[in-house]
Amino acid sequence: MSEIIQLCRRAREASYALASASRATKDAALHAMAAALRANTERIVTANAKDVAAAREAGTPESTVDRLALDPGRVDAMAAGLEQLAGLVDPVGEVVRGYNLPNGLELKQVRVPFGVVGIIYEARPNVTADAAGICLKSGNAVLLRGSSSAAESNAEIIDVLRTAVVEAGLPADVIQGVPGDRAAVKELMQARGLVDVLIPRGGAGLIQTVVTESTVPVIETGVGNCHVYVDADADLDLALTILLNAKTQRPSVCNAAESLLVHAAVADEFLAKALPALAEAGVTVHGDPKVVASGKDIKSATEEDYAAEYHGLDLSAAVIDSLEDAVQHIRKYSSSHTDAIITKSQAAARRFVQAVDSAAVVVNASTRFTDGGEFGFGAEIGISTQKLHARGPMGLPEMTSTKYVVIGEGQIRT
Amino acid sequence: MSEIIQLCRRAREASYALASASRATKDAALHAMAAALRANTERIVTANAKDVAAAREAGTPESTVDRLALDPGRVDAMAAGLEQLAGLVDPVGEVVRGYNLPNGLELKQVRVPFGVVGIIYEARPNVTADAAGICLKSGNAVLLRGSSSAAESNAEIIDVLRTAVVEAGLPADVIQGVPGDRAAVKELMQARGLVDVLIPRGGAGLIQTVVTESTVPVIETGVGNCHVYVDADADLDLALTILLNAKTQRPSVCNAAESLLVHAAVADEFLAKALPALAEAGVTVHGDPKVVASGKDIKSATEEDYAAEYHGLDLSAAVIDSLEDAVQHIRKYSSSHTDAIITKSQAAARRFVQAVDSAAVVVNASTRFTDGGEFGFGAEIGISTQKLHARGPMGLPEMTSTKYVVIGEGQIRT
Repeated sequence: MSEIIQLCRRAREASYALASASRATKDAALHAMAAALRANTERIVTANAKDVAAAREAGTPESTVDRLALDPGRVDAMAAGLEQLAGLVDPVGEVVRGYNLPNGLELKQVRVPFGVVGIIYEARPNVTADAAGICLKSGNAVLLRGSSSAAESNAEIIDVLRTAVVEAGLPADVIQGVPGDRAAVKELMQARGLVDVLIPRGGAGLIQTVVTESTVPVIETGVGNCHVYVDADADLDLALTILLNAKTQRPSVCNAAESLLVHAAVADEFLAKALPALAEAGVTVHGDPKVVASGKDIKSATEEDYAAEYHGLDLSAAVIDSLEDAVQHIRKYSSSHTDAIITKSQAAARRFVQAVDSAAVVVNASTRFTDGGEFGFGAEIGISTQKLHARGPMGLPEMTSTKYVVIGEGQIRT
Repeated sequence: MSEIIQLCRRAREASYALASASRATKDAALHAMAAALRANTERIVTANAKDVAAAREAGTPESTVDRLALDPGRVDAMAAGLEQLAGLVDPVGEVVRGYNLPNGLELKQVRVPFGVVGIIYEARPNVTADAAGICLKSGNAVLLRGSSSAAESNAEIIDVLRTAVVEAGLPADVIQGVPGDRAAVKELMQARGLVDVLIPRGGAGLIQTVVTESTVPVIETGVGNCHVYVDADADLDLALTILLNAKTQRPSVCNAAESLLVHAAVADEFLAKALPALAEAGVTVHGDPKVVASGKDIKSATEEDYAAEYHGLDLSAAVIDSLEDAVQHIRKYSSSHTDAIITKSQAAARRFVQAVDSAAVVVNASTRFTDGGEFGFGAEIGISTQKLHARGPMGLPEMTSTKYVVIGEGQIRT
């Protein structure tokens, strides 16, 4: 039996104890994990320094190094995140629905943990504690596969967390790191039946690899080519405020706007304000011919621009002739993450909400709100852009399955 | 563009109209479909006769021919099934949850159709109408791939249904058959992004093929190695009644019992009654040494027996020493479909329900109740044995995804 299969089996065995654990036990484990992170800050930061030094030596871009780097403040934030999880309602045991059947059987559909969850992620060591906490609170054993460039940090964090959960009376193997090379990760992705779900967290390339190579069910997260559509009936000042917020408040994240669509009826007026404001904010606009003609220094948009998730200060832009054309454009290019309409028209809002099939459809607000924290979930493992199981921000309930419990007194089928 | 990809694109286009259709339109379509089936009974039965003749010529077993064969009564039953769907609540638009955020945003999570659903099934032409109806009611365009041995029947039924939906004002392409050979099916299974979900309906081999070869997300249905565990505290008469019902009432279906576990404390007394009763009912028992020693003509159980879904009058049986051993046995061999405990002990029932991780866990009733009809769902596309998205009987709500609708008045993120 390979090392990965053994690891999966240990996770399965540990998951049984965790699935039966009370909320009190799980919350005690989360507090112990937080305390252990704080108590071992120096050890974690020292390990992290090795990863950071190696990354710099390898010529890693500073933005990536910044995501990799830990200091005492960031370790404290990881601990605080675990404490916050302890305050959230336990999703396990929630009765989703329940009623009595005509024959007297009591039927309940109840939330239960998946069992074993694999998380595959990039060089952000804070994800290690975050994912471990969310999985523990939702009753799932977790297999954590971070980037090899964060290997020292992750090994240290996982070791600290494992010791803490044992103190709280849970098996250490509810949290395990996945060692080894690409072949090991491939084996993890093929461990159908041993791993219940894989969640990739990271860029489009990582997610694509996991989706393509896994036989284990995958929940896709994160790619966001989000649109802001300024309708013919829009309040244009409000539209500009929202557009600038959606594009520039934090351009590197998946719920930032990447595409602007403007109804032809208001295009001249809106673009006359918006293009200079975007330029002022440092945004490079890639527009269709009408947009190019409406401003200075506008680049010509290609098909790739309309499909792009720039993750930076670029924006594709097009003038369209109707709401239906906006819908068509979004259907063609959107990643179905978050798309917004700015309009005063009830009919337009209603049609947009109905016709745009994205994880979040927004009326008169920034796309930036599609987020577990903003939605009030208290925790988020990622934002699903798939349609099966979970869509949009995934909180604790999305980290569970359900089972039916049927209680009788001798009922048989006739 | 291949024929399959064109077909998928037509389904996607048609799905937009269907997703926006009102319940009244969809119900009218279902009634039109039912009426059309009845009006074309002769045409359908005649086409079916060709399939039946070809199957007999090919030496197909009579039980398979029986599932393939249609007569006017069975066509009428298909029509009645569609009419029943028209009476069910529309899952689309259901608000799953909703509340206002602190910043005044109104947040709603709303059920929406998947979009395009592929059904891959065996030689049961009634599934064609059934699956088409369930997909239509849940707002999904459907791609129907039945067995080639039912090709004449399916082509006729699909043609009749397509004509009917057009009469009701919906695009014909909300219902399409998938033509071609195995390569075409393979292409369907790889049409990720064009097909939202694939549901295989049929035997373990079909399901395994679809799971292995698909990049489109799959919902696994149906394999059932269901257990009846007779606890130390069981009412043994009630246990025997339930066991006989679970095993023999309809042995060919997935919620029939395939394995008996008896606590050692009651094994002698229970087996002395149960083994003769099972023999009388025509059941062949494959037991462990203790069971073999307790009766006549008991075969010795192998590992394969404990794992088997017999689909017939065979039953594996073992004597175990504790409830925890029963749980271990079920974890090892169960297909996680439906497992039952017979007990008078509240503590035993509670522990069994908690520890056995199956789609349905039953206390003091037959395993045969795990069924969309019995659970009151009104319709069922299959019984999911996976943990993602849907588990257990899948009714109309399980044929939907959700989206978040966020309504604001200019909110931006700060």
